[in-house]
Amino acid sequence: MIGMFSQVKVVGRGRVGSAIHARLAQRGLASEGPDANLIVLCVPDSAIADAARTIQPGPWIAHVSGATPLSALGGHERRFGLHPLQTFTRSRGPEQLDGAWAAITAETTTARDCGHWLANCLGLRPFDIREESRVLYHAGAAMASNFLVTLYRSAARLMERAGAPPEALLPLMRRTIDNGFELTGPIARGDWATVDAHLAAIRQAEPDLAALYMAMAQVTRP
Amino acid sequence: MIGMFSQVKVVGRGRVGSAIHARLAQRGLASEGPDANLIVLCVPDSAIADAARTIQPGPWIAHVSGATPLSALGGHERRFGLHPLQTFTRSRGPEQLDGAWAAITAETTTARDCGHWLANCLGLRPFDIREESRVLYHAGAAMASNFLVTLYRSAARLMERAGAPPEALLPLMRRTIDNGFELTGPIARGDWATVDAHLAAIRQAEPDLAALYMAMAQVTRP
Repeated sequence: MIGMFSQVKVVGRGRVGSAIHARLAQRGLASEGPDANLIVLCVPDSAIADAARTIQPGPWIAHVSGATPLSALGGHERRFGLHPLQTFTRSRGPEQLDGAWAAITAETTTARDCGHWLANCLGLRPFDIREESRVLYHAGAAMASNFLVTLYRSAARLMERAGAPPEALLPLMRRTIDNGFELTGPIARGDWATVDAHLAAIRQAEPDLAALYMAMAQVTRP
Repeated sequence: MIGMFSQVKVVGRGRVGSAIHARLAQRGLASEGPDANLIVLCVPDSAIADAARTIQPGPWIAHVSGATPLSALGGHERRFGLHPLQTFTRSRGPEQLDGAWAAITAETTTARDCGHWLANCLGLRPFDIREESRVLYHAGAAMASNFLVTLYRSAARLMERAGAPPEALLPLMRRTIDNGFELTGPIARGDWATVDAHLAAIRQAEPDLAALYMAMAQVTRP
């Protein structure tokens, strides 16, 4: 599989496109010219179909969207999807790809091989995802990352209202992950009096967080 | 403040009590005898008042509960609360105290000094919390840790239903924290079509997670 593609062109220099282009440049595979044999579209989801239409048939083409179907790549038959399961920031470089996973969607064995080759080349760990499962997969990914932001910001609001330093939550949250998400605390102990007291305090201090607390508590099981 | 207490007795050997006792033993401060000048109650919240009643007045007394008021320590006037803001497991030792924060509740300057001394002695970073703010503070702590477990388990269920490896969420979640909880993904992009698609997929595959997804999405702001 080594050398499957020699010239890879990245279209789009957003958070993801910048990291992928930088990694390909490190590998000596980045191309800006018309001779690219793989074009990776790193444009917004809504711009993928238009970007694909402007490309003459011939090279392989891929997109990096989590939820967009492969059909957005239109008439290009040699195509696949590679979604890096990572959150990217402009303040980091290609190293933010290292160790993250990537969801590969492909319609043929060759396309799957191409997707796995690109993932490995980028430093990502590939796994396959069926076209019809992409939205559910992407919902799980968004929940784990985006709602983790919401969870922290919501907990930080309660801390601030209580006069406690929000940054004190960080060692707690990191250890919760390191402990394999072992449940501790009032719900694990079946201490519903404390859960009720939490809810009453939230309703008084930050009422718009009460629905979030209740929805999470109802799904949490000891 | 060094040497404020020379013999500290820990009552209770649950997750927290085991770690605290082990750390005090490392410091040469652990006591099992009747001469302890500080007694730290590491018993379940509902057992604190009974445990306090069995102790003869004299030594300082503390509890390590997040939400229990100091009044549970009854007639003991030399008292304080020290709540380690950490999730503990029996598979780790006293090192799990290192770098975590601790909420100190005290009614006098001396009691506050005692609480800060004990926190520093244990390897914890102390901050003060008012008695009337404890429940709100504890709600924030429980949200950050317990609901992080719920968030992962819920996202993992969606991943599994989609045929994706749940462990692929771990680099994503760790980096979300490392990136200072910077929001990315569909809500950050104002891509409500994807949010609606997520919700429809969740309603079909794991309907009991739909309320959680909606409550989180409503609080999430780009």
